[in-house]
Amino acid sequence: MRPIAQTLLYDDAMRLVMEAARPIARTERVAIADADGRVVATDVVASADVPPFDRAAMDGYAVVAEDTFGASTHALKTLRCVDRVFTGQVPTRGIGAGECIEIATGAPMPAGADAVVMVEETERDGDRIHVLTPVYPRQNVGRQGADIAVGNVVVSAGQLLNPSRVGALAATGATDVEVYARPTVAILSTGNEIAEQGQPLAPGQIYDVNRFTLETIVRRHGGAAVILPIAVDSVDELSAALDRARAEDVVVFSGGSSVGERDLILDVLQQRGTVHFHGIAVKPGKPTVFGSIGTTPVFGMPGYPTSCLSNAYMMLVPFLRLVARLPEWRPQTVDVPIARRVVSTTGRHQFYTVRLVDGRAELAFKASGDITSMANADGYIEIAAQTDVVEAGTIVTVKLF
Amino acid sequence: MRPIAQTLLYDDAMRLVMEAARPIARTERVAIADADGRVVATDVVASADVPPFDRAAMDGYAVVAEDTFGASTHALKTLRCVDRVFTGQVPTRGIGAGECIEIATGAPMPAGADAVVMVEETERDGDRIHVLTPVYPRQNVGRQGADIAVGNVVVSAGQLLNPSRVGALAATGATDVEVYARPTVAILSTGNEIAEQGQPLAPGQIYDVNRFTLETIVRRHGGAAVILPIAVDSVDELSAALDRARAEDVVVFSGGSSVGERDLILDVLQQRGTVHFHGIAVKPGKPTVFGSIGTTPVFGMPGYPTSCLSNAYMMLVPFLRLVARLPEWRPQTVDVPIARRVVSTTGRHQFYTVRLVDGRAELAFKASGDITSMANADGYIEIAAQTDVVEAGTIVTVKLF
Repeated sequence: MRPIAQTLLYDDAMRLVMEAARPIARTERVAIADADGRVVATDVVASADVPPFDRAAMDGYAVVAEDTFGASTHALKTLRCVDRVFTGQVPTRGIGAGECIEIATGAPMPAGADAVVMVEETERDGDRIHVLTPVYPRQNVGRQGADIAVGNVVVSAGQLLNPSRVGALAATGATDVEVYARPTVAILSTGNEIAEQGQPLAPGQIYDVNRFTLETIVRRHGGAAVILPIAVDSVDELSAALDRARAEDVVVFSGGSSVGERDLILDVLQQRGTVHFHGIAVKPGKPTVFGSIGTTPVFGMPGYPTSCLSNAYMMLVPFLRLVARLPEWRPQTVDVPIARRVVSTTGRHQFYTVRLVDGRAELAFKASGDITSMANADGYIEIAAQTDVVEAGTIVTVKLF
Repeated sequence: MRPIAQTLLYDDAMRLVMEAARPIARTERVAIADADGRVVATDVVASADVPPFDRAAMDGYAVVAEDTFGASTHALKTLRCVDRVFTGQVPTRGIGAGECIEIATGAPMPAGADAVVMVEETERDGDRIHVLTPVYPRQNVGRQGADIAVGNVVVSAGQLLNPSRVGALAATGATDVEVYARPTVAILSTGNEIAEQGQPLAPGQIYDVNRFTLETIVRRHGGAAVILPIAVDSVDELSAALDRARAEDVVVFSGGSSVGERDLILDVLQQRGTVHFHGIAVKPGKPTVFGSIGTTPVFGMPGYPTSCLSNAYMMLVPFLRLVARLPEWRPQTVDVPIARRVVSTTGRHQFYTVRLVDGRAELAFKASGDITSMANADGYIEIAAQTDVVEAGTIVTVKLF
């Protein structure tokens, strides 16, 4: 066995991790209906005006604005309604002085008209329309190109698509959009004891957990998970797995990163690539390896589910979001007093799962490796390496899962 | 044309909307890898212990704790190492007093051993293991069932699955889980002027926007969008569309909810179902219809993209999340001063899109219907109906998109 002689401070480890992150360059076209949450790769420039014509912004009457000047409930201005135009239609005629055309919201403005009087501001008597309130030129008219003009950048490279940006793309008639590819993340559980779900456990075996927690984390933060078969603890098998995995943008092993004789990730990575660090001053999650093979970053997460998952939140998420070109993660947080005094491990950046009970944060941690301590938690707090004791009642920031 | 004579206050409208929300009862089984973000429908009870056996929680030596009592760097306790056991193996023998077995993290404890001495607390000399620090019974041992015991509820009905809860399911060997179905939401754009992307616009036509903004909102908030073909403004076609749409859990029309003669959603809903309200004191988004056909709630959103989208955020999201059994939406928010004085429309709950510029909120709103005013915004603020003026510098809460 090879004890970890020296651990790297969390901040120093994170600096190395973030330095290894290369924002993805690969792009792909996706249908706009599937583009929410994706990052735009190239500016999208409008090739036509939106709206494509001057149109009524209200239901009412298209008028010559000047004809309405001075109108009031005591001094009605009366116009002759000569036609009507609904949305989706094209006006068959224009208007002159003293005339108006009944018009629906969104319908093209007739020639000669320069404003719309809202229906609520009129009274109708056959084809005579009494206007109660004046309108100024362009009032209640949506001008051609007012929303998006030809040549406008509709969405810019690097922007994250959301419902309204997808809507803006739709408005231009786009059917698809060039976005950055989701970084592919090879996920690979290792260990002789790890069994797949759907089959009974042999003696000494446990079911794979990390594959699933890592997969959901990766998906939540912009990655495409590529699940590789469970690998046993042999240099040959791990080397083969690494060779297969390095085709992806990122590789995440779990298990085999500790100090046991069969914790071979370190050896394999040393042989075939470069180890950037082994061992971080965090708790849980100390026995973490980070390195690269060629240009592919490789994480070797601890096998314990909680250690693996807390490292995924603390290290993989910021890294992956940078690779995926997503903005920094901003988890929901609540600031609450901590229920009990916590004595933290000196010199280690500590990750504590907590439950929110009666407006206070209670530690949920059971024991290293206990997935239920995370599953039953509402979120987590972090205690910096230089903080040894947090007194009961201290306000802590809980990052919600 | 039929002006909206009276509008409902936003809060009153929301009360009616939320009363009409029936939390979904339909359930389905999904693979645990696809279960993140889903709501558990039935308690999942563990049918086996996790871990399934007592195991080492550290790399080191399985010992009889009592043999180590009194050990120190000045008074080494020396044990004879009689075997080794790796993870995934079963110990072939037990130990007696004075003996130990080298053991890897996660390996089953040998019979007779009741604690593990960490490798870092030992020195090795052939088969003689010098222990530097005592351990107490059970130290560094993960007990069978300590994480999850047979009969424990692993995840409860109503719980939202997240990475660690998916991990807890995986730990029990589950391959799938019973979750509530995503409510299906029929989305249907109406209007003679609405054209589908991928074909040139005829005169008087514009591209459909609301289908896409509604679809992305629905997906983000737990619904399954069912896109129906664009319907023109005729009672027959809208009736047929409503008959098709009512098979879904929720129906959302956009367009045709205003007061023009061809804004027929109101008529169709009155004929075939019940109208709960028409017209809300919100801006934008006033001409909104809400009703039901049979037990299916029907939203008639305004056709203007911004009105439709702001109503989707303000009304559809809380409604849909209740139907989907998701917790209340908590958008990311920032509290910042507003850049300029805002004079709000008296008596209307107002929704303003804003950009964050130099730490202040600037109104992004261009004109009703302008999708770019939302696409370029970072989020929105709401100004209550009874607030008429917000002075420059007032701190406002921006809900981020």
